[in-house]
Amino acid sequence: MESTALLTDQYELTMVQAALRSGAAHRRCTFEVFSRKLPAGRRYGVVAGTGRMLEGLEQFRFGQAELDYLDSQKIVDDDTLQFLANYRFSGEITGYAEGEVYLPHSPVLQVTASFAEACLLETFVLSVMNHDSAVAAAGSRMTMAADGRPCVEMGSRRTQEYAATAAARTAAVVGFAATSNLEAGRRWGIPTLGTAAHAFTLLHDSEEEAFAAQVEAFGPGTTLLVDTYEVEPAVRKAVEIAGPELGAVRLDSGDLVEQAHEVRKLLDSLGNNNTKIIVSSDLDEHAIARLAAAPVDSYGVGTRLVIGSGSPTASMVYKLVERAEAGAEPVSVEKASAGKASTGGKKQALRSLDDHGRAEAEVISARGPLADAGYVGRQLQVPLVVDGEVQPGFTGAEGVQQATQRHRDSLAELPSDAHRLSDGDPVIPTIFR
Amino acid sequence: MESTALLTDQYELTMVQAALRSGAAHRRCTFEVFSRKLPAGRRYGVVAGTGRMLEGLEQFRFGQAELDYLDSQKIVDDDTLQFLANYRFSGEITGYAEGEVYLPHSPVLQVTASFAEACLLETFVLSVMNHDSAVAAAGSRMTMAADGRPCVEMGSRRTQEYAATAAARTAAVVGFAATSNLEAGRRWGIPTLGTAAHAFTLLHDSEEEAFAAQVEAFGPGTTLLVDTYEVEPAVRKAVEIAGPELGAVRLDSGDLVEQAHEVRKLLDSLGNNNTKIIVSSDLDEHAIARLAAAPVDSYGVGTRLVIGSGSPTASMVYKLVERAEAGAEPVSVEKASAGKASTGGKKQALRSLDDHGRAEAEVISARGPLADAGYVGRQLQVPLVVDGEVQPGFTGAEGVQQATQRHRDSLAELPSDAHRLSDGDPVIPTIFR
Repeated sequence: MESTALLTDQYELTMVQAALRSGAAHRRCTFEVFSRKLPAGRRYGVVAGTGRMLEGLEQFRFGQAELDYLDSQKIVDDDTLQFLANYRFSGEITGYAEGEVYLPHSPVLQVTASFAEACLLETFVLSVMNHDSAVAAAGSRMTMAADGRPCVEMGSRRTQEYAATAAARTAAVVGFAATSNLEAGRRWGIPTLGTAAHAFTLLHDSEEEAFAAQVEAFGPGTTLLVDTYEVEPAVRKAVEIAGPELGAVRLDSGDLVEQAHEVRKLLDSLGNNNTKIIVSSDLDEHAIARLAAAPVDSYGVGTRLVIGSGSPTASMVYKLVERAEAGAEPVSVEKASAGKASTGGKKQALRSLDDHGRAEAEVISARGPLADAGYVGRQLQVPLVVDGEVQPGFTGAEGVQQATQRHRDSLAELPSDAHRLSDGDPVIPTIFR
Repeated sequence: MESTALLTDQYELTMVQAALRSGAAHRRCTFEVFSRKLPAGRRYGVVAGTGRMLEGLEQFRFGQAELDYLDSQKIVDDDTLQFLANYRFSGEITGYAEGEVYLPHSPVLQVTASFAEACLLETFVLSVMNHDSAVAAAGSRMTMAADGRPCVEMGSRRTQEYAATAAARTAAVVGFAATSNLEAGRRWGIPTLGTAAHAFTLLHDSEEEAFAAQVEAFGPGTTLLVDTYEVEPAVRKAVEIAGPELGAVRLDSGDLVEQAHEVRKLLDSLGNNNTKIIVSSDLDEHAIARLAAAPVDSYGVGTRLVIGSGSPTASMVYKLVERAEAGAEPVSVEKASAGKASTGGKKQALRSLDDHGRAEAEVISARGPLADAGYVGRQLQVPLVVDGEVQPGFTGAEGVQQATQRHRDSLAELPSDAHRLSDGDPVIPTIFR
């Protein structure tokens, strides 16, 4: 099992060294993960990456190879190396479960442990959550715009190879039906899809030969790519070769709305009423919405999903909000940096709901249980790690399935403004009390 | 060694199956990697990721675990599994070496092998090159704007955890002096840096205690972060505690230009003329340029670098341009898809230079050696893989060092317009002949 412990900024380790020296390393601390704002123009955010983060937490160990590197570069001293050699997160992580909607300042994660234990996780936790949540926020709008038509994630080639795998997983959380990425299929049991690219047509002496080869290998139910040369003759050849059972044709270029109508008419005229039309080619939520009235059966989404459709990273931060000496009351702490001030104290969060179960506000407080203050709604924070043990249901294939269901439920609770694709304010306000 | 073989789109494998069945899998093919355009508004592109791609190529093997997954999901048939089990790239890869500048349509890579061998690499090659080249294009403008002042990469928390490591490596290629990312330090020998975050100050009972703890652990030459509360008193405390040897102070919020002037004046008035000023906080190439006249000693660059400063992915594609039956002449192939047409034939590329060695044009031809046609300049393509063997000098720490030098040289050759940060056309034209 590969260690994730060096997927981190050096200063997490040097802070541990200095705090071990000053004696403050053992103070019990709570760090909170939150974002001051949503991705530009978005109505809601989506918590994603939680399952991957918890999987990585179990591999966050400094083995001999990691320690040797740190020692060889004199990055930390011997006492710190000794601490790292024994490191195993033994604290608590509480937070919004994966798939849950979040708003500005939602306390999406709280990590409580000794300073040294919790500090070490900062970079890794933020890398996972910021990437996956950015992809999720974009992807959720895409499946919403697709309004029930299946979306397939196919953006691997447009992002770093492991980010691709994470993006494919995140796509599943926000309702994509399948991915082209095999590693995501293997790791999290996500359905995978894929048939052929233009190169397969170009490889053969003619488009007919290529289609015949593909049908021979995968049967008539396969998807034939019909825009390598001219679309209309290609559709005719496809039907001629695969017959009435032809599964689907894919269009990957040009004006998709116009072509979808023409191809549908042509397929129907040839008797292929059950042959589906799949479109791809730089689709984003807006392009999908424009295709709503076109006879399209599913969407292949690539680049725009994996780069967060204009917002490739969420702006979540990991801030110390509370510290306590052993046996003493916690002290609330906050920084005053211009434009980056934080609010001290461990927060509780509740999504207040009206009589119809519709979300009204995100209520956040560092002053004790919100239910006691008369707020009615849904408690958003659940235990993810207890005494260092990752709780069941959040990782692996099960974690993805649960997150997918949770996202659907969380979205269904939002006011209908959540469906608007135009830039706007958060769909419900954040209230501090 | 972890396999990279499933970091791929499913259709690469299904195409192999269908081509094995049709007999075309063994045709000798050349795929070319190129981009139709540069990232929006950029004057030049930067080839990056080549070293990582070659490292991953050596791990691109289907082991039992990968084969079991493919078999369990019935993704390909037994003949194809057999082919994959024996897969080892045995062909040729030629291309622009890492760090080299590229222009629209530059043939940055050519992969020549049987269709089956070359097709399988498409997704992996593009994932690596598209991500790293996007980061490189952004980062190159940042080091250019910094004009000799060191830049330090610290964006890990804003991108997927392995993309972070790749971004840190790419930053080194385009001239960043160091990174905060430890895994990049370990893998490629890149210098790492880091001292403390705001949390370290908040952890202690006072800013004085935190500064004292840090100086105690790392000596007075350390960098103290002075904007957790108020900057001016913090700088005074820092000097009082660390003395005249204080290495640097870091500013991470607010108006950096104004603060840099004030802090410099204050440090000098306290006799700390040698204490440096490091600034961070959402810097990009434009912010760095605005700080050119401010008394800043180095730049910490995070988010904007790792997300490609507005262009998080390059738009490189992997297109079949030539195929040949055994013993026969190669046939040039190209697709006609609307807006995505390709040009057939294996291309040669030359950067034509004037009498002063200044780049004038990118000359590309599928019709034979350009030197024979009277073009004077620099041949851009070098052998990266010969008979399946990765050539020396492109991978590991050496690969990064060579790429860094190559990028500097390649940039020095460009006309001065390359230095303009405003949106514009490519700095030299691409000429086809």
